[in-house]
Amino acid sequence: MSSTFGTLFKTTTFGESHGSGVGAVIDGCPAGVKISLSEIQAQLERRRPGQSRLTTSRQEGDQVEILSGLENGLTLGTPITLLVRNLNQKPSDYRKMANTPRPSHADYTYREKYGITSQSGGGRASARETLARVAAGSVAEQFLSLAFGVEIVAWVSQVGSVEGVLSESELETLLRYDVDFSAVRCPDRQKANLMSAAIEKAAADKDSLGGVISCLCRRVPAGWGEPVFDKLDALLAQAMISIPAAKGFALGSGFAAATMTGSEHNDCFVGNGVKLGTKTNFSGGVQGGISNGQSITFAVAFKPVPTIGKAQKTADYEGHEIVLEAKGRHDPCVLPRAVPIVEAMAALTLADLALRQRRL
Amino acid sequence: MSSTFGTLFKTTTFGESHGSGVGAVIDGCPAGVKISLSEIQAQLERRRPGQSRLTTSRQEGDQVEILSGLENGLTLGTPITLLVRNLNQKPSDYRKMANTPRPSHADYTYREKYGITSQSGGGRASARETLARVAAGSVAEQFLSLAFGVEIVAWVSQVGSVEGVLSESELETLLRYDVDFSAVRCPDRQKANLMSAAIEKAAADKDSLGGVISCLCRRVPAGWGEPVFDKLDALLAQAMISIPAAKGFALGSGFAAATMTGSEHNDCFVGNGVKLGTKTNFSGGVQGGISNGQSITFAVAFKPVPTIGKAQKTADYEGHEIVLEAKGRHDPCVLPRAVPIVEAMAALTLADLALRQRRL
Amino acid sequence: MSSTFGTLFKTTTFGESHGSGVGAVIDGCPAGVKISLSEIQAQLERRRPGQSRLTTSRQEGDQVEILSGLENGLTLGTPITLLVRNLNQKPSDYRKMANTPRPSHADYTYREKYGITSQSGGGRASARETLARVAAGSVAEQFLSLAFGVEIVAWVSQVGSVEGVLSESELETLLRYDVDFSAVRCPDRQKANLMSAAIEKAAADKDSLGGVISCLCRRVPAGWGEPVFDKLDALLAQAMISIPAAKGFALGSGFAAATMTGSEHNDCFVGNGVKLGTKTNFSGGVQGGISNGQSITFAVAFKPVPTIGKAQKTADYEGHEIVLEAKGRHDPCVLPRAVPIVEAMAALTLADLALRQRRL
Amino acid sequence: MSSTFGTLFKTTTFGESHGSGVGAVIDGCPAGVKISLSEIQAQLERRRPGQSRLTTSRQEGDQVEILSGLENGLTLGTPITLLVRNLNQKPSDYRKMANTPRPSHADYTYREKYGITSQSGGGRASARETLARVAAGSVAEQFLSLAFGVEIVAWVSQVGSVEGVLSESELETLLRYDVDFSAVRCPDRQKANLMSAAIEKAAADKDSLGGVISCLCRRVPAGWGEPVFDKLDALLAQAMISIPAAKGFALGSGFAAATMTGSEHNDCFVGNGVKLGTKTNFSGGVQGGISNGQSITFAVAFKPVPTIGKAQKTADYEGHEIVLEAKGRHDPCVLPRAVPIVEAMAALTLADLALRQRRL
Repeated sequence: MSSTFGTLFKTTTFGESHGSGVGAVIDGCPAGVKISLSEIQAQLERRRPGQSRLTTSRQEGDQVEILSGLENGLTLGTPITLLVRNLNQKPSDYRKMANTPRPSHADYTYREKYGITSQSGGGRASARETLARVAAGSVAEQFLSLAFGVEIVAWVSQVGSVEGVLSESELETLLRYDVDFSAVRCPDRQKANLMSAAIEKAAADKDSLGGVISCLCRRVPAGWGEPVFDKLDALLAQAMISIPAAKGFALGSGFAAATMTGSEHNDCFVGNGVKLGTKTNFSGGVQGGISNGQSITFAVAFKPVPTIGKAQKTADYEGHEIVLEAKGRHDPCVLPRAVPIVEAMAALTLADLALRQRRL
Repeated sequence: MSSTFGTLFKTTTFGESHGSGVGAVIDGCPAGVKISLSEIQAQLERRRPGQSRLTTSRQEGDQVEILSGLENGLTLGTPITLLVRNLNQKPSDYRKMANTPRPSHADYTYREKYGITSQSGGGRASARETLARVAAGSVAEQFLSLAFGVEIVAWVSQVGSVEGVLSESELETLLRYDVDFSAVRCPDRQKANLMSAAIEKAAADKDSLGGVISCLCRRVPAGWGEPVFDKLDALLAQAMISIPAAKGFALGSGFAAATMTGSEHNDCFVGNGVKLGTKTNFSGGVQGGISNGQSITFAVAFKPVPTIGKAQKTADYEGHEIVLEAKGRHDPCVLPRAVPIVEAMAALTLADLALRQRRL
Repeated sequence: MSSTFGTLFKTTTFGESHGSGVGAVIDGCPAGVKISLSEIQAQLERRRPGQSRLTTSRQEGDQVEILSGLENGLTLGTPITLLVRNLNQKPSDYRKMANTPRPSHADYTYREKYGITSQSGGGRASARETLARVAAGSVAEQFLSLAFGVEIVAWVSQVGSVEGVLSESELETLLRYDVDFSAVRCPDRQKANLMSAAIEKAAADKDSLGGVISCLCRRVPAGWGEPVFDKLDALLAQAMISIPAAKGFALGSGFAAATMTGSEHNDCFVGNGVKLGTKTNFSGGVQGGISNGQSITFAVAFKPVPTIGKAQKTADYEGHEIVLEAKGRHDPCVLPRAVPIVEAMAALTLADLALRQRRL
Repeated sequence: MSSTFGTLFKTTTFGESHGSGVGAVIDGCPAGVKISLSEIQAQLERRRPGQSRLTTSRQEGDQVEILSGLENGLTLGTPITLLVRNLNQKPSDYRKMANTPRPSHADYTYREKYGITSQSGGGRASARETLARVAAGSVAEQFLSLAFGVEIVAWVSQVGSVEGVLSESELETLLRYDVDFSAVRCPDRQKANLMSAAIEKAAADKDSLGGVISCLCRRVPAGWGEPVFDKLDALLAQAMISIPAAKGFALGSGFAAATMTGSEHNDCFVGNGVKLGTKTNFSGGVQGGISNGQSITFAVAFKPVPTIGKAQKTADYEGHEIVLEAKGRHDPCVLPRAVPIVEAMAALTLADLALRQRRL
């Protein structure tokens, strides 16, 4: 088990979905940073189930409590501990499946690894663990915003085969407000409607959908990232792929880079009076693993939720074929709720690299 | 600078392309592992420039020397130090560009980060650093092979817009021998020819091409990977994106997962007498960040080489527009030479997770 | 701030003495270990203020709550979170001293480092932080006991100039029961009385006393410890000196080794049928940083408590001379309460090295 | 095996005494630091065997080569690799002892841990490994000196029962020149003669002596050290106890603190116009794990060299009693040569904490 992320801005998350609570300890946040509890809470709300018809109707009512590290709203430089109690512990939903590993879920691999099965099946593979990331990520984001003016905005850019498209000028000014305009969190409003329809259809089919979340980090100063193994993009990739259900990561041009020539893909420099800028940003704001002062842009692919009501032929732990139909309440598509998780992991990655960059 | 990868099987690489040499120290390799120097050398040969018309004609002649950690061909449990001397130091090729950051290269970001410019431009961003990864990766691979029977095979699956296709049975039996049959390292022989032609055309155009490398890791036992942040797939993503020019990472279904439904994408279980297997492997052998006993499959997208002979309008450090035409000898496509690098980073990732998995 | 100890058995502590609570997250404890809450509580009781006349009369009433990582009394392999709420928050005791750094306390250095002063003065330098260590250490100790039969016993071997003496046979059979027989936790009963008298005299003088705690770890298997920097004794030294007020660490013969010759000090081997033993144990159970199968023995020196009622001429932050007389309730000697802290840090060190030792 | 020290200024050492060479990779040294090769070499000379009658007559002739990380005498911010080739490989001296573990040496524990025995007996427990520490420590020291004006001076303060004594004013101005005045490296010249005589007598007796090295670090700014586990004194303790043969560590008053009262031991503050100073320095320059701006003072106890010519009754690996008389050339007392090792480990500790301290 490795529940800590970061070298200097270190976040450790804890908690099972059916235990007392989930939370995080942030060790290494500088002293004197003003932290707003309501900003943390706002991001938790965006991750919360039951926000709309598109997500599960479970009501989690996640209230964050700060156990340490703050005094009068300012960080002390000591570990910041965030706790969200679990109110809605229903292991019984899962007990029926105790003898059957859910396909494409972590039940089987947790049992192989730890030799023990928790009531909640996949233990820490539960989506509820991400709540701790969102809370900690909000602290990181507030630090980045106050200290450097960094802005992070993620949105749903694809659900199933529906892709949202934003113009460059839309991207330049995109705010969370625009993202949250639609329940599906796609700022391309036409496509947002198509995405919603696709999700509702999947729900009606007792099936689920995957998709892509895109993210933009503005005003990241040049110089962040630690070659050769802790490159900014390499750590972002780790951070994003560590999110449950993530299957792919792409920086800037991503897989499209494969089909371009060097003369098309190169981001040529242009003077802007003070610093050098680039004419294009296929690099996604990172060169040689170090931020170049342009916006950092990346995308994360998510698989469809594996827990579905549709009948599936699979096997129990003894290898006997059985037919599985998940009961319980499950998201037909996690993408809208995963937007603040992507933002949180981006913030945790950048906050750590901000501290690792020396300004002697 | 963060030149160390791994928690227990720790590899530290060192060296600039125009200094005395490059190398690696592996700390944490278990004692008593038989290491073949010629296997290391063989992987270095596959990475070496000048293997074919498709790669740069520079002759590096990289001979690895082992400075510590081995006695009579067996590891001692102490740090294993691998050194490859640089024979061909030609900083002069780069000096002309001292006042101009190469577009989409790391010159600019290294200068922003370190406030100093080495003769070789991007310092550790040089492709030569990957030589140390390949040497260390071969040690990791030999350990994995002897201790667990793990097999790692990577190949070029796309160059520009040409995609190679392998059937499931071809994948099942794919060997490095098949990969090396063509100079371009694509085992789909028809497509290999098209890829070669595309690379030669790019070279003639003084341009460059990107592509995709796919990789397969067989016989990885179930249970490797450390949730929640050091998941097998998350660390693989970090490892792959840390390779120069990598732009995207995809595990199993990757971005295609976005367009599938849960009922299509789920890998249902099937008993095989001893362990549970899965009918499909869209998961790429990893569930909840832990290996499930199936083959681990992933793909890495590479951008086209940024150093091209074609004229580019860019700016020097003072912001003045200039026209840049790279001289020197450069690969029109790094993909064929990057195959052993992908294998090496996969081996380093798996060796570390193998040691982190307890078998109490 | 660096609140994490350990590489594989990783403990992160959190909490200020005047915040909501203190606690710890243990990440990396193997799954399936039976953990007794009452054993944790028992060690907390031994650390608790107000146990006897010899310690402060503050009543902390520390009840540990487990927030995650256990199900039905067994570890899940997931992070174990331990929380002790603060009931008795009295920052007012300290407010008077807001403008004066307490001599030989951490007020001044915390202010220099973090640029901020918490209500509790030294922030995490408070003795209350050690409560989290004791709780986490008990989990580590239970793991070590169940998995390897390791036994850890610490005791007060010196208070002021009074030194306790134990014969070899007394050491061999020493139990916590013997240690706890006297309030001062010295199993040499005669000297225990003298120590108590010395502490009571110091209290009457509004002064304080230091001393030495000795510790014995039995049945540690040969082979634990990671040369060259994470040697068993080196990590023990770090662990012990990280305890508030610790000033010295000695393994086995310690500083007395300086006055011995090699022929006196060498622990010659002797066959015992199965393994090799040693005739003497000046080494303290560690050779070359690795346990040799003998008992691990070490001692830790503690300075006298810096907070005293006696008047002291010192300076406030502006440099003006003032006379300071601490009010509040303070221990005249922390040694008796520090015994479980030494045991806890020994357990955390050994548990980590146990996991780092491979048994392929 | 854990051959890396430091979190941001990370040093990895490698090499067996009878392999090709020993060396170190420093990852994380800031760019632009001027490094003098001759200063490194000078410290290596002080560690070298054969400097005087008091040390072994082996001639190692250790020439350091820099493989990476420097260009034109300046650090690049990339890993600095230092290599010293082994010229004098004489495994035959040790082969005779292949079946007998040397008492109080690491032969037995290395075999228990790694299940393999290298020609050199204790593998990395060899004193030759410290050569890499001295080389890397000199780089750290040069960085600390240039960036902060830090000065580090260690000396032999005790050999056997002879203790050197320095007045406060002698301490204040003590330089390496004063230390090196006597071959035994004790600046108390009278006691230096007695120490030399004691060592010569031990040599004549085919025996060996231990002792104590004291160290002083001047001009360390207030604020270095990372509570609660990576306190300055805790990491110093780890660093010092990781040196072969070290048995004890004492900060400031050390074990003498045990016999003092709080009113005697407290370092009361005094204004000095700009910052606060302290009237005394029993704390050894560290409070709450953080430097307070006073000199950092500590002492390290070393056991007598275990390899002695005198006959010892011990057992071979099969448990048969044998009489062992070491041949070869060995130091009767390592203290004089260990002075630069103590300085090196102090420098590596401080350089890391310097980088970890933020100056926002």
